[in-house]
Amino acid sequence: MDLKNSLETYFDRLWPLCRSLTGEGYRRSLDILSEVMPMERLKFESGRRVLDWIVPKEWIARDAYLIDPNGVKRADFKSNNLHLVGYSIPFNGTLNLSDLRPHLHSIPAQPDAIPYVISYYTEAWGLCMTHRELQSLPEGDYQVVVDTELTDGHVEVGEAVLPGSTDREIFFSTNLCHPSLANNELSGPLVMAFLYDRIASLPNRRFSYRFVVAPETIGAVCYLSVRGDHLKQRMDAGFQMTCIGDRGHFTYKLSRRGDTLADRAARLVLRDMGPHEIIPFDPLGSDERQYCSPGFDLPFGSLMRTRYMRYPEYHTSLDNKDFISFEAMTGSIDAYFGMVCALENNVRWRGTVLDGEPQMGRRGLYITNGTPQGKQDRDRAKFWVLNLADGANDLMHIAERSGQPLKTLISVSAELRTAGLLREE
Amino acid sequence: MDLKNSLETYFDRLWPLCRSLTGEGYRRSLDILSEVMPMERLKFESGRRVLDWIVPKEWIARDAYLIDPNGVKRADFKSNNLHLVGYSIPFNGTLNLSDLRPHLHSIPAQPDAIPYVISYYTEAWGLCMTHRELQSLPEGDYQVVVDTELTDGHVEVGEAVLPGSTDREIFFSTNLCHPSLANNELSGPLVMAFLYDRIASLPNRRFSYRFVVAPETIGAVCYLSVRGDHLKQRMDAGFQMTCIGDRGHFTYKLSRRGDTLADRAARLVLRDMGPHEIIPFDPLGSDERQYCSPGFDLPFGSLMRTRYMRYPEYHTSLDNKDFISFEAMTGSIDAYFGMVCALENNVRWRGTVLDGEPQMGRRGLYITNGTPQGKQDRDRAKFWVLNLADGANDLMHIAERSGQPLKTLISVSAELRTAGLLREE
Amino acid sequence: MDLKNSLETYFDRLWPLCRSLTGEGYRRSLDILSEVMPMERLKFESGRRVLDWIVPKEWIARDAYLIDPNGVKRADFKSNNLHLVGYSIPFNGTLNLSDLRPHLHSIPAQPDAIPYVISYYTEAWGLCMTHRELQSLPEGDYQVVVDTELTDGHVEVGEAVLPGSTDREIFFSTNLCHPSLANNELSGPLVMAFLYDRIASLPNRRFSYRFVVAPETIGAVCYLSVRGDHLKQRMDAGFQMTCIGDRGHFTYKLSRRGDTLADRAARLVLRDMGPHEIIPFDPLGSDERQYCSPGFDLPFGSLMRTRYMRYPEYHTSLDNKDFISFEAMTGSIDAYFGMVCALENNVRWRGTVLDGEPQMGRRGLYITNGTPQGKQDRDRAKFWVLNLADGANDLMHIAERSGQPLKTLISVSAELRTAGLLREE
Repeated sequence: MDLKNSLETYFDRLWPLCRSLTGEGYRRSLDILSEVMPMERLKFESGRRVLDWIVPKEWIARDAYLIDPNGVKRADFKSNNLHLVGYSIPFNGTLNLSDLRPHLHSIPAQPDAIPYVISYYTEAWGLCMTHRELQSLPEGDYQVVVDTELTDGHVEVGEAVLPGSTDREIFFSTNLCHPSLANNELSGPLVMAFLYDRIASLPNRRFSYRFVVAPETIGAVCYLSVRGDHLKQRMDAGFQMTCIGDRGHFTYKLSRRGDTLADRAARLVLRDMGPHEIIPFDPLGSDERQYCSPGFDLPFGSLMRTRYMRYPEYHTSLDNKDFISFEAMTGSIDAYFGMVCALENNVRWRGTVLDGEPQMGRRGLYITNGTPQGKQDRDRAKFWVLNLADGANDLMHIAERSGQPLKTLISVSAELRTAGLLREE
Repeated sequence: MDLKNSLETYFDRLWPLCRSLTGEGYRRSLDILSEVMPMERLKFESGRRVLDWIVPKEWIARDAYLIDPNGVKRADFKSNNLHLVGYSIPFNGTLNLSDLRPHLHSIPAQPDAIPYVISYYTEAWGLCMTHRELQSLPEGDYQVVVDTELTDGHVEVGEAVLPGSTDREIFFSTNLCHPSLANNELSGPLVMAFLYDRIASLPNRRFSYRFVVAPETIGAVCYLSVRGDHLKQRMDAGFQMTCIGDRGHFTYKLSRRGDTLADRAARLVLRDMGPHEIIPFDPLGSDERQYCSPGFDLPFGSLMRTRYMRYPEYHTSLDNKDFISFEAMTGSIDAYFGMVCALENNVRWRGTVLDGEPQMGRRGLYITNGTPQGKQDRDRAKFWVLNLADGANDLMHIAERSGQPLKTLISVSAELRTAGLLREE
Repeated sequence: MDLKNSLETYFDRLWPLCRSLTGEGYRRSLDILSEVMPMERLKFESGRRVLDWIVPKEWIARDAYLIDPNGVKRADFKSNNLHLVGYSIPFNGTLNLSDLRPHLHSIPAQPDAIPYVISYYTEAWGLCMTHRELQSLPEGDYQVVVDTELTDGHVEVGEAVLPGSTDREIFFSTNLCHPSLANNELSGPLVMAFLYDRIASLPNRRFSYRFVVAPETIGAVCYLSVRGDHLKQRMDAGFQMTCIGDRGHFTYKLSRRGDTLADRAARLVLRDMGPHEIIPFDPLGSDERQYCSPGFDLPFGSLMRTRYMRYPEYHTSLDNKDFISFEAMTGSIDAYFGMVCALENNVRWRGTVLDGEPQMGRRGLYITNGTPQGKQDRDRAKFWVLNLADGANDLMHIAERSGQPLKTLISVSAELRTAGLLREE
């Protein structure tokens, strides 16, 4: 089965599950992803203090709906789990329409979209529907069923590690806490799982690779409470994977420091891939908020396609299978894998001939015929590597300064090393 | 009486006085300003060596005019003190028109303006008139009266200090040596006096504030000769106040170093106030020439509206009450006071939770409902402060990096401190 | 004889000689240039190892041509030395057209140009002609004569030094290995020789000046093998002189470091001369490849007019006397001499009055009449020098920061020094 089909198959299995920060839907989703990327589970019990946070109760959502005055069932959780406000407390009773209204959510500007609403840290219940439906509700008494429960349980974090030959690490993080939403967020875990698969088959890895699936914010806080020191000591580059499945061009959000290895790798790979956008760090967003908090300040950026909050389907029922593209997702895996290659090959080369150029012709390393127009791109890349390989510059610097494609520089470096003109510093 | 009316009242009293580097008009002007901003007088006697300069003689101008061949009085000093070239030496005699001409000044391109001309350091006499009048002068003999005197006296500098809780100082400097000219220069001393008034009522000042009124160039040189070392040790930011009363947008001229606290405060305050212009330092201009001379090199910039030499009314009789706006002057006081607030609040905060975000919801510090579009500007500012409050960044840096309004950052910092999430580093 | 005529006279004598990396034509060309710029000869024998390179054999070209099936002589080396591929090995025989074709070179896109082709490091022979001629060749047998010889000999480098009062050096390098090509490259040695002449008459030189004429690449490698350490210790700025005779505007290619004294001098001189282009370093090009190799990394840039490979006449018979301009070449000498002046005058001045401005009026150093519009450019330059002459800034820095013309700054510095307001730091 090809990659696109595999992505779609897993998407279809994950789509209907009702995920949240905690609970069965989340656990079942981790199970499915573990078929591709086997994960350990880290568990954090309700009430536990993690850094500045307190782990919330586990939320169980069994059913939720309205029966309108005409006996019609509406906002049926079982038909679309977005109908129920996330972390709703239980409620069972009859309300007339005006008393019910404060509990109903819709988006007037998008009358056919069901909004995604949560109430994690305020105790409340609510139901979501399209604005068109909301406006058509008849006056009268409504039977309300919100069959939920908040109970002691766990926040769970899935973790996978692919070891390399050194103790330096590359880190990938994604979220799994949204219910039936496609780009934000099933695209992230799907891209991660199949990136894992590709890196697993990469021979002679210098770096170790760490993959984390967690509910947004609280999951990252939990994870940092046990792995924060490790990451500070080991991580050379990390990336948040979110909103990575739509048809838009790539967007990279810089780390807090803005010039880390993660940022440099992303800039170079995107530069060579075509139109894209680099945006500065800001302290809102996804789990970069935690990984780039001032106490950790990790080399951690975020590669997206169309970023959160910048597409109208965001956090509505319109962020569905139609909105994403499995073709685009394979391109996202390519981009992430490009950054892996950039990092793996980021050697500080040192030329064996530094005084004057090495005599390339004598070694059969290029064709000189007196017409410099004929210089091949490959030859040009060789001269850049040789000129800048003074032991102080890593290969990314050479790519940054020369403007030559990173892939070409990686390839000619190997050739020059074989010819005895480069050695690793 | 409101601020605008106060400014106008003092303007009207100061306007007719014949000021110069020295003399009665200058002293009387200092007296009037002292009603709002009580000043000490520093006196420097004629002939005294101050730094590289020699204090000039005091100039007394009693009267000056022409009687034309038809008996008409022209260029009457008593009707407009611009008719007499500043520092004219005395002359009494009869000249025919062609002998008189070299002593007459006008502006052909502005035929209705009387130019402002001075001859401080060359002994000469002269009279100024509109070009229209100059061209209409009949041939014949003119009686010339220039009743002036150059005599030993003093250059005087007015100085006021508002103490604060630390020995660090903010410094304001302005000039008072021009006769009846409005934007350049009565706007400067007027804005200073009423800024003094506002700062005087600011509780818990960290900084001390120093205000200096002096004749241009020689006054600054005199002042530096006695306070230069003090300013080098104490001044954190200083500003020249000139051309600050017209209706144009703000112009800030950077200090010699270009990145001082003065420059940063001005950039931020103007950024938040709308269209404005930042111009680089150059060694021409007003008293920044002295305060930014290489031996002092103080953190001293200049906040103006339309800068000197950039408006056609500059140094002519058209720089009068019609040209300025007391409304604009109150805005100028606001801008200066904004810089004072920026400096007073430029704390290096340190978060009490640095590892991961603090749990804001638990503390009631913001509303989280899963729709990040709903993040209030105030919430955004809080996240910026918390993310950058690592003890290394001052609040101006946070404003510079985040783009958030400085006022909002000051306000949320206070709230976060009260909540126990920040402490002063 | 004026400079333009001298340039043309020497051009006409050098033009017909068949130069190459080595050989009689090259040696004869050095002889002619030595009439203007007397040079020592450094010799490097064939087979000698120089840095990473091996000195090639010397190439003797006596004759070369084709006799076509109709008895017509074609590609006659004696009519234009571009007809023979440089470093062709000898050949004598009869070939039919299809066997001959692989040895024939033309440029389809420029049907009237004979290309310049060399084969330095691959043993081969070939003949060049216009594409129009190539297409008109009749079928049949061709008599081929390539009367050449590769023999042990020498690479030779010409060197001239003009001593100065310090041991710091300015370095100029050019090439002489191309046969009848005008802009690339007779313009370089011609401009160098007459620049030498001008510098020789400059009194009180602070710097020593070193001039090197060499075959491209191998000549620079040879020269660095004996003078590399000397240049590393002594050279403050160096320049490659090539493509400096056409009518285009100036192009300066930065050194590898990009901010050396050479780069700063070139930027300032070109800034004051009008439209020009500054291009970044890249490791292709002329002998900057060797002088800026990572082991030497010298402060060495390249001032050209239209750069190599950017004009269609480049490396063809169209790069001839019509393409160049002796007027432009005198302008090139002026530009180079401007850089010499910039370097000679790049003093770190220190004002004798640093606290406040010196009182210029008292010293008769400028006219002050209260109308700053009247400030002369010269006065403005004086204030810049005095403000920045704190002993830390060289004159180039003052020119960079102030935007004032370097020539004016040099002139007013001399005046201020005479007035006792500056001394050399």
